[in-house]
Parts: sequence; structure tokens; C-alpha cells
Amino acid sequence: MKMNELCHEIISSRSAYDSIQPKYCQLPKGHSGKHSEFHYLDHLRTVQKSVADKIKRDSTMTTGAAWKSAEAGPNRILRWVMLLSDSDLKHYEIQMDKLKPQVVAKLREKSATYDDCMAVAKKLTWLVYQMNEAPKPPQDIREYLENYFGKMVSGSTTCIICKEKLSFSLFSKAQRGKAEIETGHISPREHNAENVGFAHRECNIAQGNKTVLEFYDWIRGIIKRVDNR
Amino acid sequence: MKMNELCHEIISSRSAYDSIQPKYCQLPKGHSGKHSEFHYLDHLRTVQKSVADKIKRDSTMTTGAAWKSAEAGPNRILRWVMLLSDSDLKHYEIQMDKLKPQVVAKLREKSATYDDCMAVAKKLTWLVYQMNEAPKPPQDIREYLENYFGKMVSGSTTCIICKEKLSFSLFSKAQRGKAEIETGHISPREHNAENVGFAHRECNIAQGNKTVLEFYDWIRGIIKRVDNR
Repeated sequence: MKMNELCHEIISSRSAYDSIQPKYCQLPKGHSGKHSEFHYLDHLRTVQKSVADKIKRDSTMTTGAAWKSAEAGPNRILRWVMLLSDSDLKHYEIQMDKLKPQVVAKLREKSATYDDCMAVAKKLTWLVYQMNEAPKPPQDIREYLENYFGKMVSGSTTCIICKEKLSFSLFSKAQRGKAEIETGHISPREHNAENVGFAHRECNIAQGNKTVLEFYDWIRGIIKRVDNR
Repeated sequence: MKMNELCHEIISSRSAYDSIQPKYCQLPKGHSGKHSEFHYLDHLRTVQKSVADKIKRDSTMTTGAAWKSAEAGPNRILRWVMLLSDSDLKHYEIQMDKLKPQVVAKLREKSATYDDCMAVAKKLTWLVYQMNEAPKPPQDIREYLENYFGKMVSGSTTCIICKEKLSFSLFSKAQRGKAEIETGHISPREHNAENVGFAHRECNIAQGNKTVLEFYDWIRGIIKRVDNR
């Protein structure tokens, strides 16, 4: 991965988790104007705010239980907070030992460093701009993202699982209240720029906790058994 | 489907839904002893009660929301009750118009007649006895079930989706609190003896709301795209 040289000034916030991990300005070194952690989402935010919000959320937050309770745990939490030990988390009023073991496992396997989360957000933004029907990025954002991930090719973003081309319009479609497009992981337990992408909701569900390659092996086996009967 | 000639005496119960649909004795006509709706599960119940309970539950009850609330609706209800109109259901304190449309759709598509549910329970029992490592059925139960569905072949029951042989021991295995084996439907919205069978939980999830044939077409398409790149 090529890199942009970043400003990296600390951006102070009122988050209770700031003492664990400060936020850093992700703009190029020597930039003009205000510091910003997600400046490359500014354009997408004006086009379709929900997409920018989704990228920020999926890259930085765990998905926990669908509801919040003492037993089920927090429903979303910053991924890097989940790198802390159980005893350190108590200082932030997160009682891991009160949660069910399955919830703990789910939260812990979604932990990721701040830097990986920042890289994931950039990668997802780069992918969105290469979807069919996607808006065109402003030149500065295009260059910033291409410096990391290479030249953008319009209409080249595919579902990481079924390999069908993805359309930007899928972001606004929903079935039974669930978005038709999700952030997916080639290997489900690694949250970094190389391993993330977008997937159809149905593909993501079918993949389950397999890697994409394990999923292909699995469905090849099914087809083989079906055809040999 | 061949048939047993049944006793069909009404078995009175204290269920609030008895006025909608009485329970009928499913024993052969002229049987001795007590009337029974699920006599063919008696043996399985002594071997592994949870399996007999599961067959009865999956064949006769809808799966609703994972929790119970005014908005989410009843979490399980008799499938034939869901054949009643919204206004008839009000007499049973079920307010369909208070539920979210998605919940209503989910409940309604799981409706089935009493006779179909009885046939499903018998079919599932017939399939269980043909799993690897399954107990041997007593002769009267074997004959009763074979009269409907044909000769039992030990070790012949496969997952209706991936076609791998299923073992009776899967019923006692669970991952993250979820059973590894589920009742599946070849076409997800038809609850009758021809259309039901057992499936691995992961297969059932991957199938989603597709028919098994649609699922095969879908995964064939994926393999084709993956291999052609």
C-alpha cells in the first residue's frame, strides 16, 4: 500500500475513549484549512449522507448485538477499544465478564487498531467511487485515495463474494428494513484495508464465518454432490 | 403419498385455539389404548426428548421474532392459527395490525393447515430414523411411517441443501447456542411433507429465502464468475 504523508495533528474531541486513542488529522501534510479525520468523505456526505455515515461506522465500530442490554453488551463500540484488556475496560464501564461468552468472542474478534480502521474507511470510499452509478469524486479526493490504492476504474467494484458488479443505487435499497449492501471481509476476522470490501447482504450472510475461499470450496462441493446424483 | 387410515377421534385439550382447530388422534383406525396426536414420537422421546420436541415444534409452530413484544409479535404460534383473518385473530388477542409489516409477512408465510403440519411431523420423524447413528424405530412406528413415505433406508437422510449425509448426533451439537441442524424447506414458503427436510444450520442460512434450485443456480453463477476471472 502506497501512503500519503499525513498531517497527523491530534484532533481533540469529547469522546470518553479519547484517552485510549486520540483522533488524528488524515489530511495531507501541509494542508490548508481545518484538520479533519474523514475529509475524503465530505463529498460523499453531500451526495448521500447515509453512505458516508455507513463507511465511517462500519470501518470504526464493532457490530454487537442488535439490541443493548447488560447481558448482550454494547451494540456498537469503537473497534480499537476492544483491544483493551477486560480490566482496563472496567475503567470505561464496560464489564466484559458480565457478557455472555459468545458476545465477548464476537466483540473481541471485531477489534482492530485505529490505523487499520482509518485505512479501511479510505479503502471503502475508494471502492464506492468505482461502483456503477457512483458520483464522480472531486480531483483532490480522487488523488488522495489513488495514492493509497491505485487508479480508480469506474464501474469496477464487485461484490467480494459473488463477484457481480455493484451499483451505488444498492445503498438506497432495503429489504425488510435491511440494506442490500454490506461491508464484507474476505477473511471474516481481519479488519484491514486488504481484507475489506462490499458485498450483497445475501452473499455476506451465506459466507457466514468462512473465508471467501472456504466459501467457494464449500459451494463447489455442493454443486459436485448435486450433479453426481 | 400413501395414507394410513386414521382413528381421527377429537382429542380435547385446554388450548385457547381448540375452537379454531381440534386435535385429532393420528393412530391407525381401530387402535387399542389411548388416543394420541403424536404417538409415533413416543419412542424418539424416550431416546432423546429434545429431538421429539423439535419435530413437534417445527412442524406445528411458526418461528417468529427471537423475542416477544407487542411490536415484534408472538415468538411462536400454531401455524394454522396464522390462516385466520386479522379480524378473527383479534378474538384470540392477536393484534396483527399492531405488528410491523415485516413481522406480519413472516408470520403469514409460515401459515399451514393442521393436516399439512401433521404430515410434516411424520415426514421429519421418518427422516430422523434414516439418519446415520439414529436409533432403530419400533416395528409399529416403522410400518406406520413407511405407509406414508416408503421404505426406510438406514443412513440415507441428507441435508436437503448440501446433500451431505446427516448424523443423528448433530441434534446434540450446538455452536454459539444454536443447533447445528434445522428443519428446512425446499421452497421456503411451503410447509408440507413433500417440501420439508433437515438441513445444516449454515446451509439453511445460506439458502435464505431462495428455493433450493434457485440456490444452486445462484452458487453455480458465483463459481462461473470466480473461475472466469
